[in-house]
Amino acid sequence: MIILGLDPGYAIVGFGVVKYMGNKFTVLDFGAITTNKDEEFTSRLGQVYDGVSFLLDKWKPASMAVEQLFYGTNSTTAIGVAQARGCVLLAAKKHNVAIGEYTPLQVKQAVTGYGKAEKSQVMEMTKLLLHLDHIPKPDDAADALAVAICHAHTGGSLMANMKGLR
Amino acid sequence: MIILGLDPGYAIVGFGVVKYMGNKFTVLDFGAITTNKDEEFTSRLGQVYDGVSFLLDKWKPASMAVEQLFYGTNSTTAIGVAQARGCVLLAAKKHNVAIGEYTPLQVKQAVTGYGKAEKSQVMEMTKLLLHLDHIPKPDDAADALAVAICHAHTGGSLMANMKGLR
Repeated sequence: MIILGLDPGYAIVGFGVVKYMGNKFTVLDFGAITTNKDEEFTSRLGQVYDGVSFLLDKWKPASMAVEQLFYGTNSTTAIGVAQARGCVLLAAKKHNVAIGEYTPLQVKQAVTGYGKAEKSQVMEMTKLLLHLDHIPKPDDAADALAVAICHAHTGGSLMANMKGLR
Repeated sequence: MIILGLDPGYAIVGFGVVKYMGNKFTVLDFGAITTNKDEEFTSRLGQVYDGVSFLLDKWKPASMAVEQLFYGTNSTTAIGVAQARGCVLLAAKKHNVAIGEYTPLQVKQAVTGYGKAEKSQVMEMTKLLLHLDHIPKPDDAADALAVAICHAHTGGSLMANMKGLR
């Protein structure tokens, strides 16, 4: 079962591709799609959509996992991030890939066993669970891998349903 | 010069298609793309994208006009609307159609000559400027036509630049 975890944004989209079989993780790929800040916003949305579509074509994941977005504290970028996130979800829809959405609390709980874990603890556990030598960089990629782990750990029944979609 | 005005959302996207030649408006089409509330959010994003793409294919506008989105008061729907708006902008990008974005104040100013006009005044002036017998329904369509008028009135120099894009 291949899972694409994503951390959406309009400047950078963190991604992590993991294979989850028999309770074991194999990391297939991780990194970040970055967009050019000198280009107009709509071009950046196109780059986000095309980048995610490329990953979906390349890895053919059974499902995509993203964190839920809340109307929170960082008002200056929230609208831009939400618009990019819409394009990310659309890419999954156009590829007929099922989507799992998780709260930050669910991700922390699934990765560390503790919903109020520090970010550094989540990253350390992500490294350990994925048998990596270092914490993945950039942070956006580590966040994307964490949400992929969360999906694997908590989305079992959901993923059984999703198999019919592909 | 054909302009597609849009009022984005995930439940309803108001649209208005106008031709603007020699300071005269001709209304070609208006209405609303509506999505099914019983379907999952991502499917609704897909319907928004496909609906806008259909209009772009059908009317081949030189440009698309939308209101800017602010991190404002209606927090419960703002994230959802922003995600749908991202898909609307992406559709224009994929069709290589230039985008004009305007503040609510700019739209009111352009349509009524007064930036603090009431919504009813904007709708009445939209009807008059477009030589319509009635105020367009639904309100989302009227709003879309108003932003198209704003683009025609204020985007002259921009539109000259845009011609090279098509």
